[in-house]
Amino acid sequence: MKKNIVDLQEKLQALLLTQQDNFLQGAVADYIPALASVKPDLVGISVATIDGNVVGAGDYQRPFSIQSISKVFGLVMAMNRVGDSLWQRVRMEPSGQPFNSIIQLEWEKGIPRNPVINAGALLVSDVLASHFSSSKLAFLTFIRKLAGNDTIRVDNQVYQSELTHGNRNAALAYLMKSFDNIEAEIPDVLSHYFTQCAISMSCQQLATSLLFLANKGIDPRTKNNICTARDAHRVNAILSTSGMYDQSGEFAFSVGLPAKSGVGGGVIAIVPGYGVICAWSPPLNKFGNSVVGMNLVSDIAEELGLSIYH
Amino acid sequence: MKKNIVDLQEKLQALLLTQQDNFLQGAVADYIPALASVKPDLVGISVATIDGNVVGAGDYQRPFSIQSISKVFGLVMAMNRVGDSLWQRVRMEPSGQPFNSIIQLEWEKGIPRNPVINAGALLVSDVLASHFSSSKLAFLTFIRKLAGNDTIRVDNQVYQSELTHGNRNAALAYLMKSFDNIEAEIPDVLSHYFTQCAISMSCQQLATSLLFLANKGIDPRTKNNICTARDAHRVNAILSTSGMYDQSGEFAFSVGLPAKSGVGGGVIAIVPGYGVICAWSPPLNKFGNSVVGMNLVSDIAEELGLSIYH
Amino acid sequence: MKKNIVDLQEKLQALLLTQQDNFLQGAVADYIPALASVKPDLVGISVATIDGNVVGAGDYQRPFSIQSISKVFGLVMAMNRVGDSLWQRVRMEPSGQPFNSIIQLEWEKGIPRNPVINAGALLVSDVLASHFSSSKLAFLTFIRKLAGNDTIRVDNQVYQSELTHGNRNAALAYLMKSFDNIEAEIPDVLSHYFTQCAISMSCQQLATSLLFLANKGIDPRTKNNICTARDAHRVNAILSTSGMYDQSGEFAFSVGLPAKSGVGGGVIAIVPGYGVICAWSPPLNKFGNSVVGMNLVSDIAEELGLSIYH
Amino acid sequence: MKKNIVDLQEKLQALLLTQQDNFLQGAVADYIPALASVKPDLVGISVATIDGNVVGAGDYQRPFSIQSISKVFGLVMAMNRVGDSLWQRVRMEPSGQPFNSIIQLEWEKGIPRNPVINAGALLVSDVLASHFSSSKLAFLTFIRKLAGNDTIRVDNQVYQSELTHGNRNAALAYLMKSFDNIEAEIPDVLSHYFTQCAISMSCQQLATSLLFLANKGIDPRTKNNICTARDAHRVNAILSTSGMYDQSGEFAFSVGLPAKSGVGGGVIAIVPGYGVICAWSPPLNKFGNSVVGMNLVSDIAEELGLSIYH
Repeated sequence: MKKNIVDLQEKLQALLLTQQDNFLQGAVADYIPALASVKPDLVGISVATIDGNVVGAGDYQRPFSIQSISKVFGLVMAMNRVGDSLWQRVRMEPSGQPFNSIIQLEWEKGIPRNPVINAGALLVSDVLASHFSSSKLAFLTFIRKLAGNDTIRVDNQVYQSELTHGNRNAALAYLMKSFDNIEAEIPDVLSHYFTQCAISMSCQQLATSLLFLANKGIDPRTKNNICTARDAHRVNAILSTSGMYDQSGEFAFSVGLPAKSGVGGGVIAIVPGYGVICAWSPPLNKFGNSVVGMNLVSDIAEELGLSIYH
Repeated sequence: MKKNIVDLQEKLQALLLTQQDNFLQGAVADYIPALASVKPDLVGISVATIDGNVVGAGDYQRPFSIQSISKVFGLVMAMNRVGDSLWQRVRMEPSGQPFNSIIQLEWEKGIPRNPVINAGALLVSDVLASHFSSSKLAFLTFIRKLAGNDTIRVDNQVYQSELTHGNRNAALAYLMKSFDNIEAEIPDVLSHYFTQCAISMSCQQLATSLLFLANKGIDPRTKNNICTARDAHRVNAILSTSGMYDQSGEFAFSVGLPAKSGVGGGVIAIVPGYGVICAWSPPLNKFGNSVVGMNLVSDIAEELGLSIYH
Repeated sequence: MKKNIVDLQEKLQALLLTQQDNFLQGAVADYIPALASVKPDLVGISVATIDGNVVGAGDYQRPFSIQSISKVFGLVMAMNRVGDSLWQRVRMEPSGQPFNSIIQLEWEKGIPRNPVINAGALLVSDVLASHFSSSKLAFLTFIRKLAGNDTIRVDNQVYQSELTHGNRNAALAYLMKSFDNIEAEIPDVLSHYFTQCAISMSCQQLATSLLFLANKGIDPRTKNNICTARDAHRVNAILSTSGMYDQSGEFAFSVGLPAKSGVGGGVIAIVPGYGVICAWSPPLNKFGNSVVGMNLVSDIAEELGLSIYH
Repeated sequence: MKKNIVDLQEKLQALLLTQQDNFLQGAVADYIPALASVKPDLVGISVATIDGNVVGAGDYQRPFSIQSISKVFGLVMAMNRVGDSLWQRVRMEPSGQPFNSIIQLEWEKGIPRNPVINAGALLVSDVLASHFSSSKLAFLTFIRKLAGNDTIRVDNQVYQSELTHGNRNAALAYLMKSFDNIEAEIPDVLSHYFTQCAISMSCQQLATSLLFLANKGIDPRTKNNICTARDAHRVNAILSTSGMYDQSGEFAFSVGLPAKSGVGGGVIAIVPGYGVICAWSPPLNKFGNSVVGMNLVSDIAEELGLSIYH
């Protein structure tokens, strides 16, 4: 399955060229000014493999707002911290609804469908805010360690912007609290959530920091156990059925990899036993997924025959 | 990944013993008398591999009502017949709703979420009823060829029973027709649908007849191209996100294989590159999935390390 | 409250003039050809009082398709036939949904919210089809007697058209049957329903035939007891909260009379203790209510101070 | 329609006796301790007429928590303050949903169905909080003036309790804010809302203070114009279609008066042209309406022939 690494570097470069103007088919997220001002024609891709190679092309070393990709890290932290009790408070089913829907949360009595829709990520944020003395610092420390890079930081302008426009997330959190499914104070939960969303990372940093999910929970570079093999499996399963918002089925159908996108334009895809792909291009389609980011992941997955559905 | 076939036979035998009384945790489908009268303690499992081995234990050669497992065969037939135009009329997203929900069909203007919920399978039945001069015969012929067994037949008592109790499926079909998403006459669509649901097959027949999905569309025994590699991939993707009704996410989370269940108690799971598992035990959990059938697939998948999410 | 009858005649005439071009603000129902071909600038109004006066203006003696106004007659017939047991099978709550929504019917397990949305009227049709040897004839006879006119008839072209385009109503009926809330065969229920919808009556005929609802159940001309005073009250209550589809609240808010509209462009309004108003103009607003018909009823109600909310 | 006032007094007394043990059929609201501790067998009724009579029986002079009955006063204040622009931000349709449902608010993009469900009352509270320098004081002043009683006050224990258990109302408010349909800060909106809900009044105070709604907007005792005749009409219309939560249709059907209930056990009913009835008994049915309160209003309405639907 693996390819010569020079070849791969060239492939990435070539793929970027095929996508040159496709970013025009989407629109940069504009619900907060801090994201709306990002240049739409930035584009990067990076592949990290469990046997130690990291390649990239385009703006793959330029940090961008990871947004919902942070849900993957938060989920791993919460699983490590509270174990299987987490699944009493959040399910692992696809939602069949837009990512920020409040309807299903009402039907299902405050139990989010899965941890990678907004309600579920707020639930996870509550777990972290309740179980760490300083959950934001703990989160940043976790990510920095995974990426092996102490310069990763929260973009304060994005954070402030999210806070100002976070009314729907506040509604989701208060609704869960009304069902007794939130322990911490809502402002603390929201502050944690918006903090993790506002972290900036590059394609290369994201690809390398998630390698443990492709390697049964073990960081292949440090040999550290980041999570159990079972939990790596579970995260990959959730990302396969629910990671790409309400386009998750289509992504499985056409690409076939556990993946997560963020409204900053990033897309990460886990290839169990091989490595991690991360692509970035800010303009989004109507589902909130990066148009070019998806194309790039799709093309490289097909080129290398990486799909888990064969 | 493969194991010595004698070992496997013994493993299946041993697994059956561990499940001896677990069928008491479920209830046999009772919406039609023909299913309600099935003995609850029947149980079978079969594994067929693409390198030609077929093993089984328990009642693995006894035919049972395949019910919704027939949706897999129907989908392949429809893909072969009308190509990508199929995806104009049905989506490939998980539903986040019970399998027979009419609510989402209304919201989404008569376009079913995917081809393995009831609405989607009725849509597929419409495609078949509209594009084959005798769709029921064509279906039976297709299955018999795949299983290499001309004795496979429709259980007429089940068929009649389904017809009598098919009001909800009729409602789904008429609602789609009101959105101009059904071409044939509704009674013909329903008759096709209930016919394919009423087919009886054994675990062994199901496991062998679906091997092409584990082998890029090619039947490993006959080398026949049953569908394209791309379509085999797509079917596996759909089964991964949506095959186990509203428990699909949990099944991915805990087992990690493309799978489909039927209210007759059957569960099939595709292992790309390896083979097919089929388990059967009539009592169902609240989601409509066989309790013991799921356990058996789960245990064998874990034992052999078959999950696609690693 | 009553006014000199000559005055009233002149008022109606004058009101028609004020509405001359307002029909341009709506669109004639086009879901069936038989309705789509009606001239949009036809307009009529009639007022019948319980003290025996009947006046009208415009095309008030020209028959039009009564459509959902027939639900009022059907409800009275069913109440008379099965008594309070009717309310085990249909509720009397406003729906908060479009008139043909199937979503609420699913939530509420096949029990329609009220007898004047489509699902409820189909339920009532089932009661009639099950309890009369020839329910269509019984219905026509009932209406002819109320209107004192034996020439009232079913428009067969409309009936055939409805039948061809009745898939959504079929879906509603089959869904109720799946909840065991339909007794007769669905084709019989639909045939009854489309028959009563396809009856043609004039404004004058509708106004006079409904006088019993303004007069505690007694037809003021014949002194016949058409229904109990309690049931007249109940019908008026249902029409007040639910008679004008999902614009019922607004109609109460701005006009303040029990009323029922039909997609043929008719609107009837009951004035308890006074009489009945019927207006007709084919073009409909987005809620399915006649634009000019509503204006006319509103103006005459305000002019005469007829609102029940004062 | 009016009756001798001594007779009426006796009737009320007699009615109370018929309901002696019926309070056992309901349960006192227990979502906050301050309400849960109210004695369940308290019961009172009062009738005030526009010609100046006020009678009562039982605990009709004992203050109780008016809760949602306060929505009526708030609505009148908001209509007076911002005029018809209010109806750009809230509709006047029945909801067909439980009073605190968040689902419909999502569907309808943050525009509440009507001002007497929770979302609508929060919207009204936002109007008041935004347009009065001290909306809570203005509200209390308004009510005291209407009741002619300066001792009416907010129960601070109830207020604090509501605040602590107000997460669902917070969710509704934040969701509306996410649709830009809330102007003030959410804590201010909630504080106003819980303040008006926590006001204590007796049956007699409520009956007399709402007389203007039965008298075209004019307080019959002071001759003050409290609101326009048109707005009195509109409030009565809204109470008729939506005042009794998701039992509004049934209340219209069986009683036939504009009415509003509160979870403190109070029920007020407006009789246009006659007066106001207020009954109180803490135990509630599953819809949140006082069991005995409804019975009392129903009985007196029937006895006196007060229904607006005749």
